[in-house]
Amino acid sequence: MPDTTPAAPPADTTPADTTPADTPPADTTRADTTLADFRASIDNIDAALVFLLAERFKVTQKVGAYKAAAGLPAADPAREKEQVFRLRTLAMSARLDPEFSEKFLRFIIDEVIRHHAGQQV
Amino acid sequence: MPDTTPAAPPADTTPADTTPADTPPADTTRADTTLADFRASIDNIDAALVFLLAERFKVTQKVGAYKAAAGLPAADPAREKEQVFRLRTLAMSARLDPEFSEKFLRFIIDEVIRHHAGQQV
Repeated sequence: MPDTTPAAPPADTTPADTTPADTPPADTTRADTTLADFRASIDNIDAALVFLLAERFKVTQKVGAYKAAAGLPAADPAREKEQVFRLRTLAMSARLDPEFSEKFLRFIIDEVIRHHAGQQV
Repeated sequence: MPDTTPAAPPADTTPADTTPADTPPADTTRADTTLADFRASIDNIDAALVFLLAERFKVTQKVGAYKAAAGLPAADPAREKEQVFRLRTLAMSARLDPEFSEKFLRFIIDEVIRHHAGQQV
């Protein structure tokens, strides 16, 4: 005897009132992925910057101790002038705003001076 | 016939009044070498920082263009909070002052915002 039982609806049939709440529009999904990719690169670069800065401060701490022991002045305007010129040149070759590279160096040097001042107190 | 001409003074004989002006004291020479070595390391690290910053700005420029095209707001306080927390944690693992890592991130983010503002004008 043939099976005359009505077939159950196929499993992939969806009710008419299904909303796309659990499947966001394709544009939004792509947006999040693109932004997340950019941010992952920024996070990698920032980690590298932090570790390099840590290494830089290790060297400037040695310079500070050395200068104090040798009786040399902490600040060296001629050296700073050379650093600014060199970094501006490097920034241009990297297509980074040279003004920013100079501001950046001043920011770092100010922090170094602040650290040294803290050590002397 | 033997040569009885008086020999010329040896070339390395120096007059009694020679001053050490062209041969600085050993301490000074060592001092300069030590400082020059430290500074060479600082210069290498600074070059790496500049090239990394150039790369970071390339990514943030893409983020800026992407956000503008997608109609997303330029600032994202939740994201910045995550970045600060992450960088402070990394700084501690690198024995870098976490306060400085936060100031550094703010300095960079301010520059990014300044750049984006400039692009929008």
